[in-house]
Amino acid sequence: MSSSSTAHKPGRVTLIGGGPGAVDLITLRGARALERADVILTDHLGPAEELDRLVDVTAKEVIDVAKLPYGRRVAQERINELLVENARAGKEVARLKGGDPFVFGRGFEELAVCAKAGIPCEVIPGISSPIAVPGLAGIPITQRGVVHAATVVSGHVPPGHESSLVDWRALAKSGATIAVIMGMRNARAIADELAAGGLDPATPAAIIQEGSTARERVARCELGTLADTIEGQGFRSPAVYVVGAVAGLEPGEAGPEG
Amino acid sequence: MSSSSTAHKPGRVTLIGGGPGAVDLITLRGARALERADVILTDHLGPAEELDRLVDVTAKEVIDVAKLPYGRRVAQERINELLVENARAGKEVARLKGGDPFVFGRGFEELAVCAKAGIPCEVIPGISSPIAVPGLAGIPITQRGVVHAATVVSGHVPPGHESSLVDWRALAKSGATIAVIMGMRNARAIADELAAGGLDPATPAAIIQEGSTARERVARCELGTLADTIEGQGFRSPAVYVVGAVAGLEPGEAGPEG
Repeated sequence: MSSSSTAHKPGRVTLIGGGPGAVDLITLRGARALERADVILTDHLGPAEELDRLVDVTAKEVIDVAKLPYGRRVAQERINELLVENARAGKEVARLKGGDPFVFGRGFEELAVCAKAGIPCEVIPGISSPIAVPGLAGIPITQRGVVHAATVVSGHVPPGHESSLVDWRALAKSGATIAVIMGMRNARAIADELAAGGLDPATPAAIIQEGSTARERVARCELGTLADTIEGQGFRSPAVYVVGAVAGLEPGEAGPEG
Repeated sequence: MSSSSTAHKPGRVTLIGGGPGAVDLITLRGARALERADVILTDHLGPAEELDRLVDVTAKEVIDVAKLPYGRRVAQERINELLVENARAGKEVARLKGGDPFVFGRGFEELAVCAKAGIPCEVIPGISSPIAVPGLAGIPITQRGVVHAATVVSGHVPPGHESSLVDWRALAKSGATIAVIMGMRNARAIADELAAGGLDPATPAAIIQEGSTARERVARCELGTLADTIEGQGFRSPAVYVVGAVAGLEPGEAGPEG
């Protein structure tokens, strides 16, 4: 009953959406997957900071992949290797992510790595930050009679960049609430492009940093003052900003008609 | 210690996102709010069907608001009244919703009703169906290097209708994955409008009915065959359809580059 029996037990990987940060915003399914794991690969997003409130961390191997001694690009390759190596060793591997694994979470890449290696891989959805963080701050990302669509978008690549895959001007015309994550650095360029696409600079906006955690900070502004508000008030990642009429709603204003 | 003491205890309302349907896709925070509730107002979405797996329903008053003897419009008014009446009676009121309360969930309307009545109201986010249901079916709503935005949109109002708030042609140009809920009846008009906006009819699409439940059904097709697939295979609400390159991805195809 030594390592050989372990090696014959088939290992598997579970990609777990941990939600925006608050430890109790993980799903029951996600919490149970953490409990049964032998190895947990985590980073600094989602409930990682308070992982000990979800599981007995002394009984698990916890690998903080944010501390892997590599650059970002290589780190993902090392994460992929760790997923495969541990599963091949017969272990239950939990890969804990912030938000939802498939919303800018590289979940599909890790799923693909497992698929190629023949390792069973389950994906457990998580509360997606760009949707839930505004909601926790009192901003409904949709509201009947006001807006019937919402777009979550990565602001990591600036508008007009050769690797940009987003037509920000079309988004500006779509009628959808726009919720941007990973977009602090490019906020001015994004706001300018949305305005160029036809969005009124007076369109309500809001910035929420570290939403759902004790460190949450919120500022309300307008599209035209978004970048100055971020800079002037020192907002930093992780943060979400929301552009659209919903960012200007107060609960007292919501009418019954739609 | 009779009803007068109860009447003096301040009641409150918690709007709980129950997720797409599977009982274990509610958050820990949501499950705890159900446990402490005196009254649970639920409908037929989310984990309502298996509520007894989350709480001891014999110890609670459970009101199925889908069975209220009114038309839809009046039913919402009656729900609002029940929230206020029960909270004013000093009760912990849980309003369990499918998905997330603020993603086409009328959460803000109920929040507003509580605000106007001076009743404390907390909102607990839920796993949003249009994002998570595709993910559970293996379709990542975003994928690095493929698509960096995703739009969730209600298909309840057909394109071009006087109360439509969505510019579907702009969405078609935005570069975002498009995930439609409440859009089965208008699927043909929506698909036609997306094609008119420039989306190739060969764009991959997928339909998922009752995602996350034991009754889940999935079909993959293309934008140009979406409506025929829904009709031909008898898909019905509740369902999500996804239009975009991600609907055509297989895990083996996901490359490491982005």
